[in-house]
Amino acid sequence: MGYTAAVAGASGYAGGELLRLLLGHPEMEVGALTAGGNAGSRLGEHHPHLVPLADRVLAETTVDTLAGHDMVFLALPHGQSAAIAEQLGSETLVVDCGADFRLTDAREWERYYGTPHAGTWPYGLPEMPGAREALAGTRRIAVPGCHVTTATLALMPAMADALVQPDAVVVSVTGTSGAGKAPKPHLIGSEVMGAVSPYGVGGTHRHTPEIVQNLSQAAGSRVTLSFTPVLAPMPRGILATCTAPLRDGATAEGITAAYRACYADEPFVHLLPEGTWPSTAMTLAANTALIQVTVDPDAGRLVAVAALDNLTKGTAGGALQSANIALGLPEESGLPVTGVAP
Amino acid sequence: MGYTAAVAGASGYAGGELLRLLLGHPEMEVGALTAGGNAGSRLGEHHPHLVPLADRVLAETTVDTLAGHDMVFLALPHGQSAAIAEQLGSETLVVDCGADFRLTDAREWERYYGTPHAGTWPYGLPEMPGAREALAGTRRIAVPGCHVTTATLALMPAMADALVQPDAVVVSVTGTSGAGKAPKPHLIGSEVMGAVSPYGVGGTHRHTPEIVQNLSQAAGSRVTLSFTPVLAPMPRGILATCTAPLRDGATAEGITAAYRACYADEPFVHLLPEGTWPSTAMTLAANTALIQVTVDPDAGRLVAVAALDNLTKGTAGGALQSANIALGLPEESGLPVTGVAP
Amino acid sequence: MGYTAAVAGASGYAGGELLRLLLGHPEMEVGALTAGGNAGSRLGEHHPHLVPLADRVLAETTVDTLAGHDMVFLALPHGQSAAIAEQLGSETLVVDCGADFRLTDAREWERYYGTPHAGTWPYGLPEMPGAREALAGTRRIAVPGCHVTTATLALMPAMADALVQPDAVVVSVTGTSGAGKAPKPHLIGSEVMGAVSPYGVGGTHRHTPEIVQNLSQAAGSRVTLSFTPVLAPMPRGILATCTAPLRDGATAEGITAAYRACYADEPFVHLLPEGTWPSTAMTLAANTALIQVTVDPDAGRLVAVAALDNLTKGTAGGALQSANIALGLPEESGLPVTGVAP
Amino acid sequence: MGYTAAVAGASGYAGGELLRLLLGHPEMEVGALTAGGNAGSRLGEHHPHLVPLADRVLAETTVDTLAGHDMVFLALPHGQSAAIAEQLGSETLVVDCGADFRLTDAREWERYYGTPHAGTWPYGLPEMPGAREALAGTRRIAVPGCHVTTATLALMPAMADALVQPDAVVVSVTGTSGAGKAPKPHLIGSEVMGAVSPYGVGGTHRHTPEIVQNLSQAAGSRVTLSFTPVLAPMPRGILATCTAPLRDGATAEGITAAYRACYADEPFVHLLPEGTWPSTAMTLAANTALIQVTVDPDAGRLVAVAALDNLTKGTAGGALQSANIALGLPEESGLPVTGVAP
Repeated sequence: MGYTAAVAGASGYAGGELLRLLLGHPEMEVGALTAGGNAGSRLGEHHPHLVPLADRVLAETTVDTLAGHDMVFLALPHGQSAAIAEQLGSETLVVDCGADFRLTDAREWERYYGTPHAGTWPYGLPEMPGAREALAGTRRIAVPGCHVTTATLALMPAMADALVQPDAVVVSVTGTSGAGKAPKPHLIGSEVMGAVSPYGVGGTHRHTPEIVQNLSQAAGSRVTLSFTPVLAPMPRGILATCTAPLRDGATAEGITAAYRACYADEPFVHLLPEGTWPSTAMTLAANTALIQVTVDPDAGRLVAVAALDNLTKGTAGGALQSANIALGLPEESGLPVTGVAP
Repeated sequence: MGYTAAVAGASGYAGGELLRLLLGHPEMEVGALTAGGNAGSRLGEHHPHLVPLADRVLAETTVDTLAGHDMVFLALPHGQSAAIAEQLGSETLVVDCGADFRLTDAREWERYYGTPHAGTWPYGLPEMPGAREALAGTRRIAVPGCHVTTATLALMPAMADALVQPDAVVVSVTGTSGAGKAPKPHLIGSEVMGAVSPYGVGGTHRHTPEIVQNLSQAAGSRVTLSFTPVLAPMPRGILATCTAPLRDGATAEGITAAYRACYADEPFVHLLPEGTWPSTAMTLAANTALIQVTVDPDAGRLVAVAALDNLTKGTAGGALQSANIALGLPEESGLPVTGVAP
Repeated sequence: MGYTAAVAGASGYAGGELLRLLLGHPEMEVGALTAGGNAGSRLGEHHPHLVPLADRVLAETTVDTLAGHDMVFLALPHGQSAAIAEQLGSETLVVDCGADFRLTDAREWERYYGTPHAGTWPYGLPEMPGAREALAGTRRIAVPGCHVTTATLALMPAMADALVQPDAVVVSVTGTSGAGKAPKPHLIGSEVMGAVSPYGVGGTHRHTPEIVQNLSQAAGSRVTLSFTPVLAPMPRGILATCTAPLRDGATAEGITAAYRACYADEPFVHLLPEGTWPSTAMTLAANTALIQVTVDPDAGRLVAVAALDNLTKGTAGGALQSANIALGLPEESGLPVTGVAP
Repeated sequence: MGYTAAVAGASGYAGGELLRLLLGHPEMEVGALTAGGNAGSRLGEHHPHLVPLADRVLAETTVDTLAGHDMVFLALPHGQSAAIAEQLGSETLVVDCGADFRLTDAREWERYYGTPHAGTWPYGLPEMPGAREALAGTRRIAVPGCHVTTATLALMPAMADALVQPDAVVVSVTGTSGAGKAPKPHLIGSEVMGAVSPYGVGGTHRHTPEIVQNLSQAAGSRVTLSFTPVLAPMPRGILATCTAPLRDGATAEGITAAYRACYADEPFVHLLPEGTWPSTAMTLAANTALIQVTVDPDAGRLVAVAALDNLTKGTAGGALQSANIALGLPEESGLPVTGVAP
């Protein structure tokens, strides 16, 4: 047990998933658990599945409570991370599951979030070029959005190798946990079961500029993106169907080879065997992303599909993977590659 | 009770939905019910929800059994309709829920179905230009595929008014009933619940050429299409997210006006109030299609989303709507516009 | 259109289902729609599936608004019906979907609801002995609770014919719509999907004394009851598994005969063919209750299982069925016997 | 990696869950994987979530393939275990997830299974009195049925302390994975979603005599049982609602104390805090059983509810827990106590 980890926002879904993974991590020990409105209550009231922590009482989210740990995971509403991080000191590893430090372009931040830009931290998507170098030794990590991780992994190899034009359409179907635990009328079970519905249509979803940022970095030029998230009746999972026009000369073989090369050494990203397509159910509770690609010759398009668990690889698992790198631990430490099915 | 209706393939999902609607139709009487392997069994074994017909015994699907009705609905596997229709005589209204007579281009048929083309019948999507004229008085109707109806209704006004370029991307999320009742390993409940997965990726799904046919007819020129169907954990419903590049000068206002004009007099297709997006749950068991559109200025794209019940407006309801027109009945006769929710 | 009907509580699930059925009733016209906190909003915001009423604006629930209709359906929180009913006048048919007037024993009311007893109205379960007589011509109807209707229909014939001892165990599995539309943390989709959990355990659920009242009336003596409701991941439906010790001499044949005799002439209650057991999916959106019984010789017990749709036969359909009787209309008028499946 | 483990029936759900747990067990190494009809195919075709084993090819289930491992897990259809076990030699630990060696009474076996009784092995429910002693050092383990584990854990303390009469009613709601992977018409997703339905009603389910056996052993006298399993729309989980008449003098406090004492030292069985009731969602993918009890004074009954994951604590986890004991490993080794939620 080399490291102590505090979790701020422990009663939410991202917080709960962080705790589930931390409980299985051989080098980390769960420290302070904090919450906002739920401070003072037992963790078991909010996450009865976290049996070993059921009797832990949630503290207020304050710097005093969070200080003194080797690392602090922030699973807070957008806009609350900067103030806390500043006071935690530069020796503490701060891993922000919120959006505050993801975007590099302050104008994009202001346009989508309406508040001043707090800054940019090393980006917690280790599979991106240069990311592991930036993460090694850092004490600040910005964890990507869950739709962002999915779409980026699906299209990055094609963009990086200039196999497609920088003009992507992404429809990303997701379970309900991404919407969080706050009870809202349209999220109650009676409304959700049997319902598939889009939200944030027309480029208004806040993950849009972050996907553009990643794909543009991969492509080396500004990528245009149509992004539509869609809610589906399941608790977890994201399946992103991504397409972009093929560049001249791009072939199915070349594309498959590019994807295979890109992810050959990745422990958590896998190109499926030919003819097998990803399903969200293949990735439940694992830090695994599964990908398949094909070429549609009539449409002149690449179609790439990626599936992952929005709470694991899409949030808490990705956070822990990046934290492992930052601390010099084996990247796979404490991260399940095996999912739960059926 | 002016008309008798036989249903071939009565034990399947399309057959069951046809019977549900026929039971509520003031001018139609349920006649012979036929099946293939299920012939000889009680309908109640297959459709216990059809209480008034529970004790009816399924006959073999033969011309003798089907003959003598005013109309025959065929809900059969592809390729079986032509032989039956030929022998039923030209006075019988034959409504084919299969694919056999949907495509106008024999080469497309052969490419996607691998058998000789049987021909082309009047197309049962009354909302398309000229469709009602072609359906009036006909005795042969080809009912569209369920994804096809959804995508066509979503994009037709924009294509028809040349508001977008003829280059569409459609991701169409659907419930499991579209895959039919044959028990297959990947369709059992344990596999389906929690799973969102694509199928027929890369333009290989048989609904692809049919969507192209409809959109091209609307656009007046050949439309390019990337179509990806996605399976979601619900029994019914389709939500199609459709996008195409805006033409110069197309505005959000102009687009909304075009959609409103196109569907103003349609009894079953509704543009939702601004800011409201369709959900499959809004259309369960109704012959209703709900649509919303927006413009994504950064992507330079129209995004149009349509939802409907794949078994009702997407199959049996659309079939009955077209049959009403063919027979000169009120088009809305026997067709629920009110859905079931939650 | 002989009768006008107002619905108080129109934005809730019971209200929505009442409206769905009223829209299909040949003799009733939808009048005022009222709400509490949702007054002033469009009905389409709450019930987008009720397409023909989407643009109706909800009024405040006041006597002035509700007065002047032939009938008023109250779908209000417990305790609000008495004051409204008093002022509506004795000529108005008031159908209360709440609990206020269900119980005959004031002490039981006070024990379970903690407020003074408002009184007892004719009980809206027409299948009970004497119920149709009490309902004919009445202008006040107390609609039973949904679990109550299910358990009563399942056990009434055995109790009435003294085939079992007056000592019942009922486990009643229900969908989430029975819990209403108020967003509560444990009812959001992420929590509900994948979750089966009991509530109101140990005789504390308010439907307990009402089931006891009905079964005791059928048995002619006080029935002891262990009642446990269980929440399951589906929007609608109740399946009650009910058991009671066999009396000496009771046989499987005798029991089946008793059930068959009891429900032979009922339009909405059906004993299934031998070997077929009810499923909630068989009754979705129909006013149908399906029942099967068997004898467990080792346990010396009757096992009776009933399934119905909690919002239809369990609430709004049962309400309309009773209203039909009260008004002298055909009992089946406007009530679907055919369900929606799959 | 002290021990090698073969899994026969690896392509089924029990086999898949065994492999998921074996992959996380620090002392066990996955050896041969065998199947019946699926022999020759990649494991990844059947269990894509088992990423590290995706490319392993399934062998035929033969003694030759299974021999030479330290332990062999049998997840086979009933009746196939005896012949294999006999030939595997007495040094090999054989853990049978089937029913063949569970029952002690040959007549009960023959009555429920219709074949000659193969014998009785040490029973793999360590929480039962004397079970750990019988399991220590054994080389043969009969893993209990999933409903059996749930109902036994729910009622055992009350039966053992004579707090209730030996007359139980159990309604056990379960997910679909218990029905296995063979595609059957009533198990396809379209049929299962939205459906709650009973099966094996009237004491006919094969888990009935096994529950009776366990509860009778606990009570010290023959227990009468009414057992009804109910299928619910979720992949995993069992929630058993169990009730029995209170004996004179039994109090709520005494009952709670008895349960607390019984499970105080159990690593995998937990009595929840007062007022909290188990949900299947609390136990997904964990080897945890959660229990709550109360007294219904009006009914004069104990109500005990237990939840667990039918594939983990109910099958594969229970099997591994017992194998740990047999091998002298720490009982909790390789077994998750933390579930996956939401």
